[in-house]
Amino acid sequence: MKLFGYFRSSAAFRVRIALNLKSVDYDQAFIHLRKNDQRSADFLKINPQGLVPALIDNGHVLSQSLAIIEYLEETRPEPALLPRDSVGRARVRSLAQAIACDIHPIDNLRVLQFLGKEMKHDAGDIEAWFNHWVKVGFDGIEQSLATDGKAGAYCHGDVPGLADICLVPQVFNARRYPSFDLSPYPTIMRIFGNCMKLAAFDRAVPEKQPDAE
Amino acid sequence: MKLFGYFRSSAAFRVRIALNLKSVDYDQAFIHLRKNDQRSADFLKINPQGLVPALIDNGHVLSQSLAIIEYLEETRPEPALLPRDSVGRARVRSLAQAIACDIHPIDNLRVLQFLGKEMKHDAGDIEAWFNHWVKVGFDGIEQSLATDGKAGAYCHGDVPGLADICLVPQVFNARRYPSFDLSPYPTIMRIFGNCMKLAAFDRAVPEKQPDAE
Repeated sequence: MKLFGYFRSSAAFRVRIALNLKSVDYDQAFIHLRKNDQRSADFLKINPQGLVPALIDNGHVLSQSLAIIEYLEETRPEPALLPRDSVGRARVRSLAQAIACDIHPIDNLRVLQFLGKEMKHDAGDIEAWFNHWVKVGFDGIEQSLATDGKAGAYCHGDVPGLADICLVPQVFNARRYPSFDLSPYPTIMRIFGNCMKLAAFDRAVPEKQPDAE
Repeated sequence: MKLFGYFRSSAAFRVRIALNLKSVDYDQAFIHLRKNDQRSADFLKINPQGLVPALIDNGHVLSQSLAIIEYLEETRPEPALLPRDSVGRARVRSLAQAIACDIHPIDNLRVLQFLGKEMKHDAGDIEAWFNHWVKVGFDGIEQSLATDGKAGAYCHGDVPGLADICLVPQVFNARRYPSFDLSPYPTIMRIFGNCMKLAAFDRAVPEKQPDAE
């Protein structure tokens, strides 16, 4: 099992947590996103989407973090990262996608670079953009977690799973700018704190990766 | 079963196709995104994320298009929208997410509105932004579909499924600006053409919805 990632990539961070939670050993290859390694001819042969993470398992190349984690869930079912019931699974996937579809891609490095280089925005504009999309997303997620009665120590009851795997890297991202106020999100931050007590999350953080700068 | 959608929403379009492919009858409620109905107090009570689609099934409120479709797949397994094998499922989910995470959210209405109203971009800038992210995404998807040997009449063999459900609305989006050149994407357009011959896709198109303008 080999993970192509980058220490600062939220999407690679998700897969590292999932592999750790499932106690799967893996090697890492490092794709330096700021050096544009993800667009190199060699990496595009592995993943034509030109994005990290990619995972190679038994010769099969997998891409897109949520697709990779669903694959891990199907091939290494224990411990489960999704609940057993379909309504619960839909809730967890919705929370995960509220981050993985509707916050993270809009605030991704390549989008911020495009805003600067192509659209000529300064650092202040980019900071406002970044914080805006985290706020819109976190407002809805906090509301769901705080009111629907399904959260426990973690996003869905008392077992860490797919929603937590997406939430933790997004909180790391939300801290990028000190101007972002996390105080309106006590439920998110409580769950984040609980996750960070677990070795599977702690070992996956960006600054503990071999390619951290 | 009740779908909260909007005729022009790509994400709602995906769910309409999935419901049609599975021959599930459903009622529709219309959330006018340009009138900001998705941020109304009434709708936020249904979906705190403030996004369409939302689906109510047996009193359960589901949100996020891919989470809804996975729920439909689990609760109404036939006809299957994902292949049986885990590697195939990962491939289909990756193609779906290449669209649903890495193209569509960046080009979504609320993002384009923010670029105009808050970041003061004119229509030309917004068109260039929109086309850029479709091109980056379609380049990778075309490369995968054309070279990995897994596509048939549809994205994965000869049965329409989750990847096609995401691809077709994205092609509708890609046609938003005549300036976008679709000629580099013969495989995408071949599959799109095959899908559009199916009633499940055709009945789901924006202009055939009751709220179409």
